[in-house]
Amino acid sequence: MDLSEVIRNVPNFPKPGVQFKDITTLVLNPEAFLQVIDVFANRYAADKPDAILAVESRGFVFGGALAVRLGVPLIMARKPGKLPADTIRESFNLEYGTDAIEIHTGALLPGWRVLILDDLLATGGTVSAACSLVKRAGGTVQEAAFVIELLPLGGREALSPVPVFSQITFHVDE
Amino acid sequence: MDLSEVIRNVPNFPKPGVQFKDITTLVLNPEAFLQVIDVFANRYAADKPDAILAVESRGFVFGGALAVRLGVPLIMARKPGKLPADTIRESFNLEYGTDAIEIHTGALLPGWRVLILDDLLATGGTVSAACSLVKRAGGTVQEAAFVIELLPLGGREALSPVPVFSQITFHVDE
Repeated sequence: MDLSEVIRNVPNFPKPGVQFKDITTLVLNPEAFLQVIDVFANRYAADKPDAILAVESRGFVFGGALAVRLGVPLIMARKPGKLPADTIRESFNLEYGTDAIEIHTGALLPGWRVLILDDLLATGGTVSAACSLVKRAGGTVQEAAFVIELLPLGGREALSPVPVFSQITFHVDE
Repeated sequence: MDLSEVIRNVPNFPKPGVQFKDITTLVLNPEAFLQVIDVFANRYAADKPDAILAVESRGFVFGGALAVRLGVPLIMARKPGKLPADTIRESFNLEYGTDAIEIHTGALLPGWRVLILDDLLATGGTVSAACSLVKRAGGTVQEAAFVIELLPLGGREALSPVPVFSQITFHVDE
């Protein structure tokens, strides 16, 4: 199945001029959702990560499904203040201002090789912060994987030397 | 596996006196996470819902995994302003003030029998709102399913006559 047929383009969200790529229509399609998880699972089955780190909150939809399929731990990376126990936090820059993500202290064991998973790669700010969290916890990043990659916003370059895998690319001027 | 062994109790979160039940330690345990999804999948395999409605954001972790397992559509219920296209919104009361959740218009087809899924049932406010969204969209609620049910906060009674299923119960005074 061509995933571009089930990803809805929503113009002018979250602000005028932006063409938002909506994955809610993808997960409403069982065949498409299964295909996405199959592609990820096949890619990592022979060389499983020690854990998957999924980014709140669309990343949780794919991360939960893939973690169960592969049988590996799922680390939930959340917005500040959402995780109940002690955390490590990493800030990143937005177009205006900053944001941050956190993981629980001890969620990731030193030496773990971690697959980072999110729905969409744009400029890479959030996932760069996730990579930093993995390193600060003593782990390494096996790969950063996405359903969608937006070109040419420089996300892949921002994450270098972390390898990037995406299932479908869109040009933002499309 | 006894799930109570992998659900962490975090005292005084999000405020003093509350014993928070933390599922991040459950999903870090692949055996436990698989067991949770197996129990849900076995319960609904012979009488599949037309869709699963999962509540942001911890519900997404379990909802994504179960939707892929059962091969049914996943409807993402999110906090206001997060969904990019036209939505229907339902407000609910919190201890202080109100909150709301939304689903996309058209995500749920009239006549669908929907399984509502979240990680935890407390007073039932969020999931009562989710039930209203399903009804407003022309569907019916097959069941509301949870990993954890907190007693005796009245969530089960608040959702009546919608059937409630939970995998583990805690008494909040424990």
